[in-house]
Amino acid sequence: MKPYEHKAQYYETDQMGIIHHSNYIRWMESARIDAMNQMGNDYLKMEESGIVSPVLDIRCEYKSMVRFDDIVMIMVRIKQYDGIRLQLSYTVTDKETGELRAQGESSHCFMNSQNRLVSLKKACPDFHAAFGKWSEKD
Amino acid sequence: MKPYEHKAQYYETDQMGIIHHSNYIRWMESARIDAMNQMGNDYLKMEESGIVSPVLDIRCEYKSMVRFDDIVMIMVRIKQYDGIRLQLSYTVTDKETGELRAQGESSHCFMNSQNRLVSLKKACPDFHAAFGKWSEKD
Amino acid sequence: MKPYEHKAQYYETDQMGIIHHSNYIRWMESARIDAMNQMGNDYLKMEESGIVSPVLDIRCEYKSMVRFDDIVMIMVRIKQYDGIRLQLSYTVTDKETGELRAQGESSHCFMNSQNRLVSLKKACPDFHAAFGKWSEKD
Amino acid sequence: MKPYEHKAQYYETDQMGIIHHSNYIRWMESARIDAMNQMGNDYLKMEESGIVSPVLDIRCEYKSMVRFDDIVMIMVRIKQYDGIRLQLSYTVTDKETGELRAQGESSHCFMNSQNRLVSLKKACPDFHAAFGKWSEKD
Repeated sequence: MKPYEHKAQYYETDQMGIIHHSNYIRWMESARIDAMNQMGNDYLKMEESGIVSPVLDIRCEYKSMVRFDDIVMIMVRIKQYDGIRLQLSYTVTDKETGELRAQGESSHCFMNSQNRLVSLKKACPDFHAAFGKWSEKD
Repeated sequence: MKPYEHKAQYYETDQMGIIHHSNYIRWMESARIDAMNQMGNDYLKMEESGIVSPVLDIRCEYKSMVRFDDIVMIMVRIKQYDGIRLQLSYTVTDKETGELRAQGESSHCFMNSQNRLVSLKKACPDFHAAFGKWSEKD
Repeated sequence: MKPYEHKAQYYETDQMGIIHHSNYIRWMESARIDAMNQMGNDYLKMEESGIVSPVLDIRCEYKSMVRFDDIVMIMVRIKQYDGIRLQLSYTVTDKETGELRAQGESSHCFMNSQNRLVSLKKACPDFHAAFGKWSEKD
Repeated sequence: MKPYEHKAQYYETDQMGIIHHSNYIRWMESARIDAMNQMGNDYLKMEESGIVSPVLDIRCEYKSMVRFDDIVMIMVRIKQYDGIRLQLSYTVTDKETGELRAQGESSHCFMNSQNRLVSLKKACPDFHAAFGKWSEKD
């Protein structure tokens, strides 16, 4: 799994002169979708098949500041996956120096278009298999 | 029609120490939806009836800076409305000083759930009547 | 301490048809700044005196969905404060139904313009006293 | 000048199921900064030398919808530059199909740290020369 790269944008800065902390939460989403695409089962296809994957909880520890024009690399790993619930962890580092910028976690469930919880194992066996494989590797 | 009030938020600032210009575009949307709600025909109801109102074009002239914690007032007016296309203008002023902060414009059409253009006159007569009334007043 | 009120905006929605989860993190910031203003020591003054209060970590559990046009109320409480580090908790409820939407937490330190950690007790005795009082009440 | 590429992110969608129009304004900024970096005079250096370049006005015409996961290419051109004021135009196309998504324009001035207008010719001769060269090419 290749890390997700993001160049910090001017519109992501705040008047402290750093990247506003809420953007890391957005980058985690981008990294998570990118990882799913790398697995060969893209998120777009999942949504088109009627399954969405809402965020149940999110956590981020800010270790050092990201500034405008910095490039960060985000590594996503599966912490736990049981077909019902997916728990991911994120490591955000500076591309140039390797310095740790942040560490995060998120939990997700899977829901159909009637807002009912589904087992991904039954609803999307391809995704389930891919998450299983990814989960083993790391 | 009462102007829409917004307090400039910390997360809307950028590293120039002012509110990032892209937020004015968002405030214009909030002011436009608020004006529709004041007309008694709220945007939520319009979407629930299957009609959306995408932005065709947008323009904003930035006259003076808005800073964190400032309160702005946004006055929305109908520039033109013919049942097919809606053109609005926006005046953003500082609540305390009355100083002009920005002037904007936006154009909108109306589309059904098949992404087809509709005449609001036929598709949503209530909204059409309300836009007509609003249009006359200002 | 009065809860912070926010009306969920159209630009905060995502294609799942709900408010995007990253916006709760922004609302928590707004609620925290509003609470400081209510204490009589506003955040703007703190920054003008050269002290910033970066986020060390943030956490949010999403309990039920917020939709466009919903009004949420956010109650902020001090979980811990020792003059060096501030830990806050947040409860997000729907204004109309009282239903719980989310629960969050954030930790903050205080830094001067040289990016050095400071004791708020020494750097901003007014703010320190106000945090102390707030901390006792809840 | 190479066009700026952007992959439309999930957090940029709205409940209409398309990318929210305010994001195009942000992408225009990213494309403009990227173009300056390609000229060899990056915006970060300009700000570090005490010069900022606020937006005076912005305009965007939305021609067709951008959806989640689409890749857009943004071409930036100088419309006018006289050392005091910079006017840019933007063309947003779909990377895969080449279809036109949007056309935009922005105007900028240059200000020093005392919020005074400056002539870039005097304040930043390197940038002035680079804008001049870029301006001739297109």
